[in-house]
Amino acid sequence: MLHSFKRLMSTKVPRQFKSVVYSSHNLEDCTSVLSIQNYTPKEDLAKSIVLRSLAFPINPSDINQLQGVYPSKPEKTLNYSTKEPAAIAGNEGVFEVISVPEGESSLTEGDWVIPVQANQGTWSNYRVFTKASDLIKVNGLDLHSAATVSVNGCTAYQLVNNYVDWNHNANEWLVQNAGTSGVSKVVTQIAKAKGIKTLSVIRDREGFEDVARNLENKYGATKVISETENGDKQFGKEQLPQILGPDAKVRLALNSVGGKSSSAIARKLGKDALMLTYGGMSKQPVTLPTSLHIFKGLTSKGFWITENYKRNPEEKPANVADFIKLYKEGKIVSPKDDISSVEWDVNSATDEQLLDLIKSSINAKGKKQLVVLKW
Amino acid sequence: MLHSFKRLMSTKVPRQFKSVVYSSHNLEDCTSVLSIQNYTPKEDLAKSIVLRSLAFPINPSDINQLQGVYPSKPEKTLNYSTKEPAAIAGNEGVFEVISVPEGESSLTEGDWVIPVQANQGTWSNYRVFTKASDLIKVNGLDLHSAATVSVNGCTAYQLVNNYVDWNHNANEWLVQNAGTSGVSKVVTQIAKAKGIKTLSVIRDREGFEDVARNLENKYGATKVISETENGDKQFGKEQLPQILGPDAKVRLALNSVGGKSSSAIARKLGKDALMLTYGGMSKQPVTLPTSLHIFKGLTSKGFWITENYKRNPEEKPANVADFIKLYKEGKIVSPKDDISSVEWDVNSATDEQLLDLIKSSINAKGKKQLVVLKW
Repeated sequence: MLHSFKRLMSTKVPRQFKSVVYSSHNLEDCTSVLSIQNYTPKEDLAKSIVLRSLAFPINPSDINQLQGVYPSKPEKTLNYSTKEPAAIAGNEGVFEVISVPEGESSLTEGDWVIPVQANQGTWSNYRVFTKASDLIKVNGLDLHSAATVSVNGCTAYQLVNNYVDWNHNANEWLVQNAGTSGVSKVVTQIAKAKGIKTLSVIRDREGFEDVARNLENKYGATKVISETENGDKQFGKEQLPQILGPDAKVRLALNSVGGKSSSAIARKLGKDALMLTYGGMSKQPVTLPTSLHIFKGLTSKGFWITENYKRNPEEKPANVADFIKLYKEGKIVSPKDDISSVEWDVNSATDEQLLDLIKSSINAKGKKQLVVLKW
Repeated sequence: MLHSFKRLMSTKVPRQFKSVVYSSHNLEDCTSVLSIQNYTPKEDLAKSIVLRSLAFPINPSDINQLQGVYPSKPEKTLNYSTKEPAAIAGNEGVFEVISVPEGESSLTEGDWVIPVQANQGTWSNYRVFTKASDLIKVNGLDLHSAATVSVNGCTAYQLVNNYVDWNHNANEWLVQNAGTSGVSKVVTQIAKAKGIKTLSVIRDREGFEDVARNLENKYGATKVISETENGDKQFGKEQLPQILGPDAKVRLALNSVGGKSSSAIARKLGKDALMLTYGGMSKQPVTLPTSLHIFKGLTSKGFWITENYKRNPEEKPANVADFIKLYKEGKIVSPKDDISSVEWDVNSATDEQLLDLIKSSINAKGKKQLVVLKW
């Protein structure tokens, strides 16, 4: 029964393949390098895993790639009927399996999947994979979670789990700046699920208290402080020890800001602790008081999820499985409130309309942009 | 024969014990807390290892200790006939064994020794130790080498040897700033002995070429560049690859300056490399471009020889033995040209004169100051 169903589905021939491609880079206006390309895939679809795209986010790293300033890049090829070698844009997205080759048992039509690696060209209506091991099932996640688990979800997962051997029975903390970012919110939730306390630093702003209470109540941040408090040495000496408790160990700092904010969170660490830098929103370098390195044994390292999964691809399915488990247990909420969705109506949008939609999503300020495909 | 000689020597009763002591700290004028104390040691000298001091340097860390800003401190006690609990100043120095207890076979009168640990109070004419394992023999070194091997010598030794598994058959480099410092010169010589190439950065100065050639010819630096060249991105792209060679791996950066100099040496590292910070002469924090952490896998750590030997005291005798071997092979030269010696005439100097001598050595600018005892 199942087998004949698979064969039936695999006869569903996809319509026109369409992708957002680029052959060159432009630092000033990266949208200028994009075009919509219609093409016939090289692969034999009957012997391949054919996917249709459900949604893909516009991540900062996608933009940096188009600008030509991101160190990880897809190979540019002539596979998409372009004149010049081109690559498909996009590194993240969730797909639905629409057909699998005969004998493929690990995936079924209707499964939701994400690619194991970056640089797979997610800004497409369809994609073709030849090996099921290059895909990870994400059935059970909502669309927003599935479309962002590869970058934000897995980054947060590894930041919390891969570097510190936590003792969840002790009063152990992590400190992070940019506490309202997508990654930080997932970090907060995963930490809470593990019994690790979080001190989240957020920018001073109007309505600070509301944002802080929301991080505490909805995401489980143990304590939220402002960048002003973060940078205040008096606060660090007097109020902070009361917040943390006398037996506190601050074992990990997560930095995605840089500059003074990075110094200030590093100062909150205990002895022989680690700071991981995974972003640099302030455009200022990571700044570390010499004494923290010499006398407090601080180690400062970088974190790059793309590189981690390139080195250890087997970790991603395991990380995603754990993430899904936490999600199903209600310990991680959907990021949908922090995402602004735009619709690509696959059946009616012209190529020009699609290109405009992509360009305006790239230029949009504020929330993360997610392109959701309407089939 | 040996035994009766030992007994004979152990009857040599030392004259008055005299030390430079302090009970309090002063950040502005640390010399104000010092006094000369004459006292009778608590230990039974016949059952102890009695040492007379040959020379001790005035190190920056000794001064920081008197200022009250150094995290490692000796315990203050009433052992030295002071009214208030006091500690003896000084963390480094070379001693001569003048008597050992009966049955002590690992040390002999006349041996030159240094303490394993810091905080032993080296600014003294005599010191008493109860365990031979707290001392390391340094016979074979000249006075200047022996008096500085604990800090500069061992720091350089561990910086080169303890963090990178070098392949001396490959074109492997370390880069260091403050290339004319005492530590850097020993680093250069140890690296050369191991077949590791050194790129030493020194301040721009009049007579740059002479200083650079001296570092290359006398100490074996592979290449010396200026801080201007270090900070010049064009130099880094064009000239530097020619200097290093096409197959070069820059695996270690040694930073004792901080600020821009630290960013610039970090930029010269290859992938997944390490920067060790062991000083901060510029008083600027360690500054690391975010992209080096995230995309080049840079790890930044601190280095503190005092802490290392507190954790692993067994490493010091081994490190010193290796150092002495290199010295005897002519691979490490005496640091005497970089040291300014002042004489403490033990037989004639008054306490007031001794105190003046110590104070002026603390306030001296330029070369490292070494107090040499004339017996």
